[in-house]
Amino acid sequence: MATEKPRVCLAYSGGLDTSCILRWLIEEGYDVVCFLGNVGQEEDWAAVEEKALKIGAKKMIIEDLRREFITELCYPAIQCNAIYEGRYLLGTSLARPVIARAQMRAAQQEGCQFVSHGATGKGNDQVRFELAFYAIQPSIKVIAPWRDPKFFKRFAGRNDLLDYAAQTGIPVTSTKAKPWSMDANSAHCSYEAGVLEDPNHTPPADMWTMTDDPLKAPNEPTDITIHFEQGIPTKVVAPGQEYTDPVELFNALNKLGATHGVGRIDIVENRFIGLKSRGCYDCKHDRPSTVKKSTNRASAPAMTILRAAHLDLEGLVLDGQVRALRDQFVTHNWSIQLYNGYYFSPEREFIENSLKFSQKRVNGEVRLRLYKGNPYILGRSSNTEKLYDAEEASMDSLEDFEPTDTTGFVAIQTIRLKKYGLQKGDEGESLSRA
Amino acid sequence: MATEKPRVCLAYSGGLDTSCILRWLIEEGYDVVCFLGNVGQEEDWAAVEEKALKIGAKKMIIEDLRREFITELCYPAIQCNAIYEGRYLLGTSLARPVIARAQMRAAQQEGCQFVSHGATGKGNDQVRFELAFYAIQPSIKVIAPWRDPKFFKRFAGRNDLLDYAAQTGIPVTSTKAKPWSMDANSAHCSYEAGVLEDPNHTPPADMWTMTDDPLKAPNEPTDITIHFEQGIPTKVVAPGQEYTDPVELFNALNKLGATHGVGRIDIVENRFIGLKSRGCYDCKHDRPSTVKKSTNRASAPAMTILRAAHLDLEGLVLDGQVRALRDQFVTHNWSIQLYNGYYFSPEREFIENSLKFSQKRVNGEVRLRLYKGNPYILGRSSNTEKLYDAEEASMDSLEDFEPTDTTGFVAIQTIRLKKYGLQKGDEGESLSRA
Amino acid sequence: MATEKPRVCLAYSGGLDTSCILRWLIEEGYDVVCFLGNVGQEEDWAAVEEKALKIGAKKMIIEDLRREFITELCYPAIQCNAIYEGRYLLGTSLARPVIARAQMRAAQQEGCQFVSHGATGKGNDQVRFELAFYAIQPSIKVIAPWRDPKFFKRFAGRNDLLDYAAQTGIPVTSTKAKPWSMDANSAHCSYEAGVLEDPNHTPPADMWTMTDDPLKAPNEPTDITIHFEQGIPTKVVAPGQEYTDPVELFNALNKLGATHGVGRIDIVENRFIGLKSRGCYDCKHDRPSTVKKSTNRASAPAMTILRAAHLDLEGLVLDGQVRALRDQFVTHNWSIQLYNGYYFSPEREFIENSLKFSQKRVNGEVRLRLYKGNPYILGRSSNTEKLYDAEEASMDSLEDFEPTDTTGFVAIQTIRLKKYGLQKGDEGESLSRA
Amino acid sequence: MATEKPRVCLAYSGGLDTSCILRWLIEEGYDVVCFLGNVGQEEDWAAVEEKALKIGAKKMIIEDLRREFITELCYPAIQCNAIYEGRYLLGTSLARPVIARAQMRAAQQEGCQFVSHGATGKGNDQVRFELAFYAIQPSIKVIAPWRDPKFFKRFAGRNDLLDYAAQTGIPVTSTKAKPWSMDANSAHCSYEAGVLEDPNHTPPADMWTMTDDPLKAPNEPTDITIHFEQGIPTKVVAPGQEYTDPVELFNALNKLGATHGVGRIDIVENRFIGLKSRGCYDCKHDRPSTVKKSTNRASAPAMTILRAAHLDLEGLVLDGQVRALRDQFVTHNWSIQLYNGYYFSPEREFIENSLKFSQKRVNGEVRLRLYKGNPYILGRSSNTEKLYDAEEASMDSLEDFEPTDTTGFVAIQTIRLKKYGLQKGDEGESLSRA
Repeated sequence: MATEKPRVCLAYSGGLDTSCILRWLIEEGYDVVCFLGNVGQEEDWAAVEEKALKIGAKKMIIEDLRREFITELCYPAIQCNAIYEGRYLLGTSLARPVIARAQMRAAQQEGCQFVSHGATGKGNDQVRFELAFYAIQPSIKVIAPWRDPKFFKRFAGRNDLLDYAAQTGIPVTSTKAKPWSMDANSAHCSYEAGVLEDPNHTPPADMWTMTDDPLKAPNEPTDITIHFEQGIPTKVVAPGQEYTDPVELFNALNKLGATHGVGRIDIVENRFIGLKSRGCYDCKHDRPSTVKKSTNRASAPAMTILRAAHLDLEGLVLDGQVRALRDQFVTHNWSIQLYNGYYFSPEREFIENSLKFSQKRVNGEVRLRLYKGNPYILGRSSNTEKLYDAEEASMDSLEDFEPTDTTGFVAIQTIRLKKYGLQKGDEGESLSRA
Repeated sequence: MATEKPRVCLAYSGGLDTSCILRWLIEEGYDVVCFLGNVGQEEDWAAVEEKALKIGAKKMIIEDLRREFITELCYPAIQCNAIYEGRYLLGTSLARPVIARAQMRAAQQEGCQFVSHGATGKGNDQVRFELAFYAIQPSIKVIAPWRDPKFFKRFAGRNDLLDYAAQTGIPVTSTKAKPWSMDANSAHCSYEAGVLEDPNHTPPADMWTMTDDPLKAPNEPTDITIHFEQGIPTKVVAPGQEYTDPVELFNALNKLGATHGVGRIDIVENRFIGLKSRGCYDCKHDRPSTVKKSTNRASAPAMTILRAAHLDLEGLVLDGQVRALRDQFVTHNWSIQLYNGYYFSPEREFIENSLKFSQKRVNGEVRLRLYKGNPYILGRSSNTEKLYDAEEASMDSLEDFEPTDTTGFVAIQTIRLKKYGLQKGDEGESLSRA
Repeated sequence: MATEKPRVCLAYSGGLDTSCILRWLIEEGYDVVCFLGNVGQEEDWAAVEEKALKIGAKKMIIEDLRREFITELCYPAIQCNAIYEGRYLLGTSLARPVIARAQMRAAQQEGCQFVSHGATGKGNDQVRFELAFYAIQPSIKVIAPWRDPKFFKRFAGRNDLLDYAAQTGIPVTSTKAKPWSMDANSAHCSYEAGVLEDPNHTPPADMWTMTDDPLKAPNEPTDITIHFEQGIPTKVVAPGQEYTDPVELFNALNKLGATHGVGRIDIVENRFIGLKSRGCYDCKHDRPSTVKKSTNRASAPAMTILRAAHLDLEGLVLDGQVRALRDQFVTHNWSIQLYNGYYFSPEREFIENSLKFSQKRVNGEVRLRLYKGNPYILGRSSNTEKLYDAEEASMDSLEDFEPTDTTGFVAIQTIRLKKYGLQKGDEGESLSRA
Repeated sequence: MATEKPRVCLAYSGGLDTSCILRWLIEEGYDVVCFLGNVGQEEDWAAVEEKALKIGAKKMIIEDLRREFITELCYPAIQCNAIYEGRYLLGTSLARPVIARAQMRAAQQEGCQFVSHGATGKGNDQVRFELAFYAIQPSIKVIAPWRDPKFFKRFAGRNDLLDYAAQTGIPVTSTKAKPWSMDANSAHCSYEAGVLEDPNHTPPADMWTMTDDPLKAPNEPTDITIHFEQGIPTKVVAPGQEYTDPVELFNALNKLGATHGVGRIDIVENRFIGLKSRGCYDCKHDRPSTVKKSTNRASAPAMTILRAAHLDLEGLVLDGQVRALRDQFVTHNWSIQLYNGYYFSPEREFIENSLKFSQKRVNGEVRLRLYKGNPYILGRSSNTEKLYDAEEASMDSLEDFEPTDTTGFVAIQTIRLKKYGLQKGDEGESLSRA
């Protein structure tokens, strides 16, 4: 009687790396269940499943995570104005928790004692996946082949993988390495490694395969309006059409933004493990060569547009002191937590509670123009919020305002500053000197 | 024998308001010395002087503060990536300390016991000027006519000023109020008040009188390179030309950027005194109607371009942990301090010391493209800094790197997270649920 | 027919100052309703009422605010480990919002258009009261006699007040000024001004009139146990007795602590308005000379003891990262907000929401010893919380722990630090040099 | 001809663990140079050297690091008011960088390719030592026997070490394990592990072997004065004696404080690696049983006394806004950096630069009383600093102060708060309700 084999749930993309890992795990004596989450990337899902089963997977589980991804991760990021190191909108980081959670659900449902992934040993993703796995199910065991000497010493380069694929009958669509690696979802597409590792190498025009080049974007702008409730986008009004469903709203903004070339970023960032790396992000989808060129060129500059709109609306409706504290405390920390893979952590939960509270009054709408690579704000309004008062803000109106009050305000503030001036004078450093 | 009259040094712009204030101060029994600082605005300086003397000023002092403004205020702002409420580059706030300091020098040299200004009673500028005045010379006395009932009750509206001008022979170039107010310097031009007080009123195309509309900007981008030493821009290489002198470098970037429509901002911001106000900024100069249209259309998107370049270079050369601390404390606090008028304060000095220290290794160069309203990063490099190492960052190279180390790194990080997962389980909230 | 007089609700303590203010307000043509909140101070309430009515008040409202004060202000302060400038436990600041709110309720119920108080023009209390008044009822008008030239020029010194009292028949218990001013409530008693204004003047032994001197405290310590639920003290077990009711629990701790001389502070602090001032606090009650020496010497070192216990319990049950964020943002900001009088503000509400969330798992009990001026921690435990695990913490046990993991953890952390070391070497600053 | 053996520099204390490690390293084929740093612990230095050589060390290097430890680590900690999780004064953390640096100097001078230490695999010290080693000399290789399976599997318990000692002739002074482990230096003595791992187990009276029990401390207090220049203690005036030399000053405060039982802490803290652990600290020296009871009972509550004095002086002389920023930014981060072992890091250097700047005006003297376990502040003064002004602070004096200014100050602050009140009203939550 055969003893039961250990079972592993592998994050499987259909590419060369995870195909080899799949085969290798089988060789190592595991039953393998493959998992692939749909977070908005373009993919020939049936082909991936067929390939997995052909290589020997017991099962291929594909789950549509788009709604979950957008509403549970992308929307809080928008509420937060999340940004890493001043520029990166966290596209990959936001998808990881949703994928890890769904993969763990798959592992639990299929009775797996192990989970595995094809992330490399120097990147952020391995950390993001594994911190999530262990938090979600502390008893799980992770197999990370690219950190297992048995694997990475055997497969030292791409040629070793190709040889292995040839030997074991794994179908390969291209024997040539791509000059960089890509990762796509509804929030963005990232490009890194390969020729991009030279930070002074300008990304070739054909890298951004699916983004419309701002230089070639339409000369006519498109104006849209975005409605927010509690900091969450609830409606997008575009010429001739409205969107309210989160997935449709995101898709619509992705398409509109892509047309106008919105959302390209090129950055050298600090990885969690202490290395610096260069990434390019254009908020667009990877179209693997196995996929026929579809007419639905779904793209994802939605994050760029929504963040700009949300940031603007907060100016109108959020109290200034709450905003300053939120910026320094919530935005800063939430962004780092997500980047470093701490979604499933008490500190993220703590910070996000604060975020939600800050958004209660972020209600209103913002009008924007999309044009040649960027969103421009045209105006904003709110039917419910009243912190802004045109009459009161007016320099000309003195209703409810005593100009002499400001004299007292200034006088009290200067009690301390006058001492500073006197002290500087005592030190022989006149403040009036240039 | 006549007793000596009290002397006041008035910030005089040549406009209707300060012209009336000048006359009124004389009527009130003061000898008035006028002061005007050149911080990069376009002005018919001789005409302003002539007007001041005609109205009755004892003297008109005009000082060129451009170099001081750029090197002492704008450059630290660049080093700091300074930004207020996520978008405003602080153009007006940066000019105030330099102007206040020079005005105080003028007051001291002319033996004035008083200084005066025409800032309104609800704005930020009155606070910025006065905090500076009192810190620089605690014994000074400030006359703020727009907060003095004797003045503001007499001159309740523009018509009262016009009547007064007519009666007292003050030359007036236009009897019609501008539909908004403007303030220009080398860092930007601001537009606020008037029709802009409706935050949903899109600024009319002709407001941005001197900015080239991004929609009409050239179809051909311009590529430039900016060199930094210790976070300060030391050289700009543009097609066919190089700039190293701070004033010339700033002017060159202003001109290039303006051509490409770079640097327009439209924002509702929180004023120090607790009011919200709407401001539009396009980093360009006000050309008062008294000035003949000059061919030198000096403009100022320099701040936008320099900030983008500096932010990018820091990604390459600044330690990640130092950067995170700098962002949260220095950038956040310095920006608020400058916005609120606390340049001459112990806390600004404290924060700026930290800023300078952080910039020691911010050396290198950044290549950018200017196109249709925005700068795009093309690449960056540094001859001296070595934190980025392409070989090491490479996902493919394992030199000096043990992939198994990351396993330990992850394992230790999860000690705490596993407890969190177990705790959530105990609370009946499985982390694997969507 | 008589026209209606304007009505004012005055914070009335029965002392010389507010008695004169009461009379003066009547002279100025107001109907005055007096208000006094019981926040735990010792007072001959009937005598105060009698005096107010005798002077001419329309009514004297005395409200017991002790429970509200303890549960809504002191308990959050404990949850927060609130402390100002490293030492001050905020006793006075915590009472102000409760008093202001109750006074405003009284004003509303009595149809007053004005509220008034006897706080001086340089202190924190005026600000705390008035920010609260205006936030609670933006239409209210505040009369602050000590800032009204009509009042403060007439009553320039204590003798003027005594003369006025004599002339108008206000009963005066002592014609000699106290050598300092005091303010007492359930949280503490403060001493400031007078001889204490010399920061090097050691408070005389008889200042702390009601505190038992640590030097004279019992040689035998008292051991107690404090139970917390969600960071709130729910039970105190003292020798022979238990307390669960908030007011009784606070009183019991005050009494026990006072016996052991716990809770004296002597500090120079930074007032909100920018002045430094010296305050002494001994968490004890003022016993005005009009009150007969009672046997119930209620005192208030409760805050000191509760804070020490809560701080200790958090070590056992609170996640380390949540704690670090909470310390830096919540504790720091909440303490400053309360000190400066921003209880009724959106930012306090924002921060307090975060505080509450952080306390969900702060459940357990702490054993302490009270002895000669201080509480000492003896031990702590929790039946429900499991973050601490003696087995796991044990240096000897390797269960569920791979020592080699730490090697990887360290290796990854040093990727960045090694670069730093190399950089310092390049700069000629060897890190091995002392 | 014999090939050269690899050389290792071992941190050697003379105890059972490092004696076994020394022997084991020799067995493993290394030449071993032993290193012991004197950071103020009591030790029979000659006996340690003799033992090391007897076991087989090539050399025993003992270096007096006390001055370096006090002036480079303890003094910045005082300037910073450094504290971890609200209570721990970082005694052990402060010593590690000095020891690691000196050990690395010894390793370099002796031509060692390796360094080794006896720290366990779950503690903070291994991390502190190794982060320091790698930063100081990135090429160094660390041998951590307690994380090396070859070692820790062979020596699973104390009995294995005793057996090994017996077999290899290592002298052993006691075959019984101590009920906890200790680590002493000039800053403190720590007690952890063993019976202390139960956080509710009150430390037995005889644990604090060398501290005088506060319960048995003298009934007569001792009053002292401490002088500071730029935040650094420069003179201690005690009854009949003055101290200015850092080592003597520290020793004197240690002795005085110990006599009065000052400085015991009992805490559950969060270790860097994510575990919670319980530590007791009494700022006193371990007297190993091999040392004869000396009459010089050197002890170390100096940190507790100096921190209290420094904190107090800052109240008098430091600007309030600088202080608030310093507290949140410098004190918080420096303490965590030191605790986690990041002394040799760019972020510590960045923060410490800020710390130094903040201390420029921290000049003055503080008078304290030591009594039954705690220091009490008696008064403070400064000859050079003028931020505190008794006249100005006085509630009675109106010199240079317009009480009406505060009215304006309050009015401006409430612009925002009134909106908040109105908003709450709209939401149906009256702020006047309790």
